[in-house]
Amino acid sequence: MTTVEAAWVDALRARLGERVSVQPGDLTAHARDEGTPYHFAPGAVVFARSEEDVVGALAVAREYGVSVTPWGAGTSLEGAALPTPGGLSLDLSGLDTVGEVDAVGFTVTVGPGVRRVALNRRLRPHGLFFPVDPGADASVGGMAATNASGTTTVRYGGMREHVAVLRVALMDGRVLTLGSAARKSSSGYALKGLFVGSEGTLGVITSLTLRLHPLPPATASVQLAFPDVAGAVAASITLRGLGVLPERLEFVDAATIRAVNRHRARRDPEESTLWTEVAGRDRGDVDAQLALVAEAAALHGGRVVGEARTPEAASALWAARHGVYDALRAAWPGHTTRIGDVCVPLPALADTAALALRLLDDHGLTAPLVGHIGDGNLHLLMHAPPDDTDAWARIDHVLHALAAHAVAVGGTCTGEHGVGLRKRTYLRAEHGEALDVMRDMKALFDPLNLLNPGKVVGEVEVEG
Amino acid sequence: MTTVEAAWVDALRARLGERVSVQPGDLTAHARDEGTPYHFAPGAVVFARSEEDVVGALAVAREYGVSVTPWGAGTSLEGAALPTPGGLSLDLSGLDTVGEVDAVGFTVTVGPGVRRVALNRRLRPHGLFFPVDPGADASVGGMAATNASGTTTVRYGGMREHVAVLRVALMDGRVLTLGSAARKSSSGYALKGLFVGSEGTLGVITSLTLRLHPLPPATASVQLAFPDVAGAVAASITLRGLGVLPERLEFVDAATIRAVNRHRARRDPEESTLWTEVAGRDRGDVDAQLALVAEAAALHGGRVVGEARTPEAASALWAARHGVYDALRAAWPGHTTRIGDVCVPLPALADTAALALRLLDDHGLTAPLVGHIGDGNLHLLMHAPPDDTDAWARIDHVLHALAAHAVAVGGTCTGEHGVGLRKRTYLRAEHGEALDVMRDMKALFDPLNLLNPGKVVGEVEVEG
Repeated sequence: MTTVEAAWVDALRARLGERVSVQPGDLTAHARDEGTPYHFAPGAVVFARSEEDVVGALAVAREYGVSVTPWGAGTSLEGAALPTPGGLSLDLSGLDTVGEVDAVGFTVTVGPGVRRVALNRRLRPHGLFFPVDPGADASVGGMAATNASGTTTVRYGGMREHVAVLRVALMDGRVLTLGSAARKSSSGYALKGLFVGSEGTLGVITSLTLRLHPLPPATASVQLAFPDVAGAVAASITLRGLGVLPERLEFVDAATIRAVNRHRARRDPEESTLWTEVAGRDRGDVDAQLALVAEAAALHGGRVVGEARTPEAASALWAARHGVYDALRAAWPGHTTRIGDVCVPLPALADTAALALRLLDDHGLTAPLVGHIGDGNLHLLMHAPPDDTDAWARIDHVLHALAAHAVAVGGTCTGEHGVGLRKRTYLRAEHGEALDVMRDMKALFDPLNLLNPGKVVGEVEVEG
Repeated sequence: MTTVEAAWVDALRARLGERVSVQPGDLTAHARDEGTPYHFAPGAVVFARSEEDVVGALAVAREYGVSVTPWGAGTSLEGAALPTPGGLSLDLSGLDTVGEVDAVGFTVTVGPGVRRVALNRRLRPHGLFFPVDPGADASVGGMAATNASGTTTVRYGGMREHVAVLRVALMDGRVLTLGSAARKSSSGYALKGLFVGSEGTLGVITSLTLRLHPLPPATASVQLAFPDVAGAVAASITLRGLGVLPERLEFVDAATIRAVNRHRARRDPEESTLWTEVAGRDRGDVDAQLALVAEAAALHGGRVVGEARTPEAASALWAARHGVYDALRAAWPGHTTRIGDVCVPLPALADTAALALRLLDDHGLTAPLVGHIGDGNLHLLMHAPPDDTDAWARIDHVLHALAAHAVAVGGTCTGEHGVGLRKRTYLRAEHGEALDVMRDMKALFDPLNLLNPGKVVGEVEVEG
């Protein structure tokens, strides 16, 4: 670190004392996320403990022209949380208070550093839960910043639907309270929704009031095997028409079931597989829904291959779905992974899934195809040895073709992982001139381009 | 109209021909809404038939510095659709195409002038419906512009949750396509949500792709009487914990039931009354939910006073709820009405309802208190002879106290009617410094302040 660079670190220390770190271990720990190959070490990390710390860090950054990237749990998959090399990583994991649970208004106010799993542990005794489940034990601030969603979105929606109130610190020193605890409003412009999904490029989240749901009195799960992807998609549409809105509706392709069977010594039918969890008032309600699930599956060539009515049985039933990552790691030790995340309109879903499998085949690749099928959201879990440049070139080609296809059929280049660094290339094709308006917004909130610069709406050399 | 004013009308005619009107009848028809006492006649009306017409009208407005206010069905309640006197009223009722219904993706693309009731008539043969129901037969463009909601919001959400894609014409000539038909996205800033609820102050909606739902296979309704408002509120919370999420959950106060009984010669119990409609897969599902509704009511001192399992019976059961406006008009012929619309967090709802009734009493007023109680949304249907300045002063006082209270308890000054002209006074108290950011947004999209100027974020003399 040069003397010039050190000046801002000294200024941070003068304001924030011990909460500022330039320890190599801390810098390295904030240099990587879970999805990209990049290693961007910050020049310093601030371990914020309060909103005041966040405001203080932003003031120093403004004064010294230092870029600031918020950090939650580091589970980002597209580079959103990676600092500018040498810049400031603003670690919010210490803003982890969980306020009083409001069991009448179905809300709780939390710090952005609170993790999803810990939050649900706190909510359970109140008979409530926070449904947004992206898989990783992400921070709720990070989840809001990427508009995360996941397995339960088909029923409950994603983060944007679950943030009632958001407090955000702006680069100019203001802290805004956006939204209200009222369940709806027609008052003023929807700034809260604008900050959700902006990946720390417009402001820094310092507090969130989240919407909660009562734990369902009864649940059950079922595993279904289909001759093809199209059948699984059609069954999920039929199910909705029958008045059943499941808690989860998850797809895994046949080849992946085969891999999991090998890894776990299971005997799941090696076909296109759909898992669904239904919830109801009681056992009878749940059983009636299971009957309709079986009926919808049968209409499209599918059959029930397993049912679970207890938590233990459900855990065993869902094992193949939850075992995909482990099976991947076991089958290809030493490989690194890259997840492709696209979301398409439901009428385009079966064709998109088929295209994904064909692209893999054409390029001599294998990769689990995992889908939140009720939302039209597909993931390809690509993998290769880190130094196999040929394989990575083919992987890039497949993921690019899939993202471009998703946009071309009226979908989106990212259903739930965010834009970060790598999806920027699709924003022009997806949003057209609206991208220019997004850039105007960025300039409005961050005229010095210091807040997570380059991410989301940043320029890329060639816009895809 | 002076010669100077006529120049822009001539320019409009050169572009849009017969679609421009200065007929007094047309001007008067666009001078009033359904909720305010104002009469603001435009200088001209453009009856747009296409997006190109909208773009053309905006171009002329830009060139001549004429203010433009979009017009849908004129059912606005807070003045949002009232033109600037002498300005341009941009009538979108002719943009009324309904595209092909997508029964797989559960969407339909429509023009902003399509009315809610006509849309649902078109959807019914497909087994689908559009749930947002503000009562009035509003245009869907107007509904999006005010983020309208209503009786079914407790289950389905309001307009912001139901607009998948929005096309908006900007003042600078660009037309943006915002959002996608994918069910979710983490791609870029949420501009679509920003335009929903912006009341035509940021751009003009030219097309909407709406999310639809399958018609429930079975429904039933129940009417419940409670000793007080608090019991009705508590029962609705308990119901949710029991795993029942009704289609509708509507409250009317005891005095209003009395008035409706008189007007319609009914014998409904003159108590705090809750109606709820539940939907399910079949009769058995619905019956099970009705049993839980009765159980939840009994826990809080309520009792079932009527049930309906057929459309005809439901129509009779809901008559007192739907008869409130008629009863008001019959009981007080010649009175004009003004509806107060606030929304509060559920824990504050019972006290807010009690406050509303106390305020009426203290000010020697009577007014139906009608609530979308599952959302915490309350309406006071104020009424007085149009020239009774003393009564209107008291009405203003009550509505002001109620709106200020809603904001003070963490709610919002308008749950579903929008800000328009009259709710602007509460925006500073409700949004704090975020109001300044909203004004920055306004300046970004409309630097000449020509798009529905003064509405929503416009300055008022004293900010409440």
